Amino acid sequence: MVKGLGERIPAGLPNELRNHGLLVNTTTGLYGWGAELETVYSGLTKALSAEVAEMDSTELHFPPVLPRSVFEKSEYVASFPQLFGAVHAFRGDERAHERLERAVNTGEDWSGHTRLTDFVLAPAVCYSVYPLFGGTAVEGGRTVDASGFCFRHEPSTEPGRLVSFRLREFVRIGSPAEASAWFSQWYERASAFVRRLGLKVEVEAASDPFFGTSGQVMAENQREEGMKAEVVVPIGDHPVAVASINYHRDHFGRIFDIRSAGGEPAHSACVGFGLERIAFALVSAHGPRLAEWPDDVRELLWNGRSTR
Amino acid sequence: MVKGLGERIPAGLPNELRNHGLLVNTTTGLYGWGAELETVYSGLTKALSAEVAEMDSTELHFPPVLPRSVFEKSEYVASFPQLFGAVHAFRGDERAHERLERAVNTGEDWSGHTRLTDFVLAPAVCYSVYPLFGGTAVEGGRTVDASGFCFRHEPSTEPGRLVSFRLREFVRIGSPAEASAWFSQWYERASAFVRRLGLKVEVEAASDPFFGTSGQVMAENQREEGMKAEVVVPIGDHPVAVASINYHRDHFGRIFDIRSAGGEPAHSACVGFGLERIAFALVSAHGPRLAEWPDDVRELLWNGRSTR
Repeated sequence: MVKGLGERIPAGLPNELRNHGLLVNTTTGLYGWGAELETVYSGLTKALSAEVAEMDSTELHFPPVLPRSVFEKSEYVASFPQLFGAVHAFRGDERAHERLERAVNTGEDWSGHTRLTDFVLAPAVCYSVYPLFGGTAVEGGRTVDASGFCFRHEPSTEPGRLVSFRLREFVRIGSPAEASAWFSQWYERASAFVRRLGLKVEVEAASDPFFGTSGQVMAENQREEGMKAEVVVPIGDHPVAVASINYHRDHFGRIFDIRSAGGEPAHSACVGFGLERIAFALVSAHGPRLAEWPDDVRELLWNGRSTR
Repeated sequence: MVKGLGERIPAGLPNELRNHGLLVNTTTGLYGWGAELETVYSGLTKALSAEVAEMDSTELHFPPVLPRSVFEKSEYVASFPQLFGAVHAFRGDERAHERLERAVNTGEDWSGHTRLTDFVLAPAVCYSVYPLFGGTAVEGGRTVDASGFCFRHEPSTEPGRLVSFRLREFVRIGSPAEASAWFSQWYERASAFVRRLGLKVEVEAASDPFFGTSGQVMAENQREEGMKAEVVVPIGDHPVAVASINYHRDHFGRIFDIRSAGGEPAHSACVGFGLERIAFALVSAHGPRLAEWPDDVRELLWNGRSTR
C-alpha cells in the first residue's frame, strides 16, 4: 500500500479505491498506482494472453503516441474531434523562449507559443495496427494482439473514466465473413471472460461518442445495425463499460488500403479491454486486499488457470 | 517475430534490430515492438526490482501524461523548452469542427484549431513523484521506485533516441547527506547492474541538455560539480547513455516545498534506467535470438538471479 500518498483521490471513486493507497494523486481523471494494482494489471495481461493463445495472433505493443500522419488519415477528427490530444512543442529561439517562460510563469494561456508536432496521443491502439497492413491483401485474415496506453480528453470524476489508460485490443482484419465471425465470437467470449473474474456482467448494444448533430445519426445507425456492443460491470454502484466489441465493416480497409483476397477493401473487427476499468471493478467487487479475493479469480489472474 | 511488418525500420539502428521483426515501424523515433522485446522489458523490470528490493522503497507507476500544473511548477520550461510535449485539444462547436476538419484534410497546419489542455506529456517520471511529498518533512528520507512512459521531442534516427520511452527511476528525497549518499551508491551500482547484463560499460560525467546560451553555463557547472553521471554502452558502434545518476541538490525540495528534518528544503537524487536503450544494447551485443543470449544474462533477466 502507498501510505499517506492517496489523500487527494477524487470522490467519484468508491471507497475501496480511494482509501487504501491503491492509487495516488495527480489531477481529475489521472492517477498513479502502486504495486497492488500493477499486480492486477499484470494478471489481467496474462489472463487475456491465455484467451487469445490459440488464435494465431501477432503480439504487438505500441507507445502512447501515434504518428500524426496516421491519425490524420484515420478520419478520427471527423468523428471524435472532442477526444483527441495533439502533441505541441516549442521550436523558437532564445527570445521566443523568454516570452514562453513569461507566459507560463504569469499563468497566461501559452497555447500560442507552441506548434503542432508530428505526434498525436493514441486514441486507441488499433490505429497503430492498420497502417502495418497498408497496401497488402490479407488472404485468410490477420489477427493482432495489440497493447498500449491511450488518451481521450474527457477529464471526469466518473469512476473508471480516465484520460490516460491501457487498452488491450484483439484486432481481426480479413474478409467480411472473417471480420463478422470475430465480432460474434467475442460478443460471447468477452463477457464470459469478465464474468469469470467474479463480476456482474451485462452486455449492451452501444455506439461511439460521434460528435455533433450528424454524429447522432451515425451513432443511431451504429446501434441499429449492431456494429458495437459493450460489456458493462459496476464500479461501486456505477455501471461502466470494461470491454467493447466493434465491427468496422470496410472503414479501416478502405482508409488504409488493406484488401481482402478478392481485391475489395478488407473488413475489420476488434475487441478492446480497458485494464484500469476491469481492475477498478475487481477492487470494487472483491475489496482492496488482493489476498482476500475469491480463489478462482486469483487462480485466473495469477496462475492463468480458469477453475470455472 | 513479427513477420513482414518491420521493413521500414530506419537505417540508424543496427541490423540485429532492423532485420529480425523485433520492432515495427511507425515514424522517426517511434516504434512498436513484438513479444520478444516485451519479454526483455519484463525481464529488466524484474531484475531492477531485485536491485531495489532491500531499500524500503515505495513502488509507484504513472501514466504517460502529467498534470500541466505540476509541469509548470517544475521549471522544466526554463531549462528544456525544446523537449517537452504539451497536449492540445479541440473544444469548438460544429462550425469550428468543420474548419478543423478542412484544415486537416487539406494538409494545412492546424496548430491554431486546438488549445492547451491541463495535460503535458511526462518528460521524466520523477516529476510525478515530488508533488506527492509537497508540504511535508521527510525525516529519515523517502525512496520511491517509479515507472512510466516519458516523451521528449527530439525525433531522430540515432540508435536508442526515441521520442516515447520507458524510464525506471529510483528517487531518493531527504537530507543533503541522504541524497548525496544515494548518488554515490548508484554511481557504483548502476554501472555494475548494466555490466552484469554482459554489456561493455563506461561511466561518464555528464550534463543535461539545458537550452540556449545561459543553458551552456548551467551544463558546464553541472558537469564540473559532478551532479550527473551516465552509464554508456554501445548500440551497434554508437555509444548511448542507458542510465543516468542525478543529484538535484535542493532544486525539487525548494520548488515542491519538501523539507528535510531540520526544516530546510529537502535534497533529492535519482537514478534512471532507459528500458528501450538497455534492450537495444542487449540485442546489439547478444543478437536477435533471446534463447542464444549468454546463460548468466538470461538467468538475471528471467529468473532474477545473478550468477556473477
